[in-house]
Amino acid sequence: MQAFQASSDACPIPEAVAIIGERWTCLIIRASMLGLRHFEEFQACLGIARNILSDRLGRLVTAGILARTPDPEDGRKVIYGLTERGAALVPVMVALRQWALDAGLGKEGHPELADRRDRKPVARVSVHAHDGRKLEIEDLVWLGPDGMEVQMPTPPRVRQVAA
Amino acid sequence: MQAFQASSDACPIPEAVAIIGERWTCLIIRASMLGLRHFEEFQACLGIARNILSDRLGRLVTAGILARTPDPEDGRKVIYGLTERGAALVPVMVALRQWALDAGLGKEGHPELADRRDRKPVARVSVHAHDGRKLEIEDLVWLGPDGMEVQMPTPPRVRQVAA
Repeated sequence: MQAFQASSDACPIPEAVAIIGERWTCLIIRASMLGLRHFEEFQACLGIARNILSDRLGRLVTAGILARTPDPEDGRKVIYGLTERGAALVPVMVALRQWALDAGLGKEGHPELADRRDRKPVARVSVHAHDGRKLEIEDLVWLGPDGMEVQMPTPPRVRQVAA
Repeated sequence: MQAFQASSDACPIPEAVAIIGERWTCLIIRASMLGLRHFEEFQACLGIARNILSDRLGRLVTAGILARTPDPEDGRKVIYGLTERGAALVPVMVALRQWALDAGLGKEGHPELADRRDRKPVARVSVHAHDGRKLEIEDLVWLGPDGMEVQMPTPPRVRQVAA
């Protein structure tokens, strides 16, 4: 159980969720992936209050997901562009979107994410082995720093069923 | 711009984030993926307050991510197990975790996610075309319900650079 708790404490997911797990932040990242770059574009297209947009853009720049640079086409303007780290969020966003659509979330009329080359929808995002085999949840195992499988804890004696 | 705003309004990501984008919720989903099933196990292994755990488990059951059933090994106990919809979150969680580790989040000592068959680390989660080609952000395009590409909006005249 200690090994499990240590692995849980070391898990980077909660920090990642603290950075990107917020409604407007996600919509700004999504809009960046679609090519929006100017403050006014984000503001107009997302219908977001200016102070919230300003705050979220600042957080995304601090997190290294967006970079704030002068607009090459007009030095008086500023653009917020995805960094490499920001672009690396594409699989996360696409996987989350596919899951959400399957779960019936969102509204009718959402666009389809397709391959530019042949305009066919992208494949389902999945976990694959190093050699390309598709892995299901049963195929996954967690190895600790010692190379040993992280064991499931033996629960303390359970006497009471909680809600 | 209207097409863009409509696509943004219809986007299922904010709803998904409202469901799973919370620290404890993520850690509970992660623990479920590792096989934890009893209230007491979650409580002891995550070091989470009982009332918060109870609340988050309830929300996850309502969202259809966990199912609450009698423990087949002891009918007096209850287990919280991943549903099919919950297991479908594996690619999301793995992609998020890989991104977070690359971004330097988490602590030393986090376990490695490996293939049970050969104990080699899983591949990087990426977006692929229907025929298996790996797609980068430049290769992706959004098609509206009319089959037309969702156009980038023409920004209103920008006069002022916002923070």
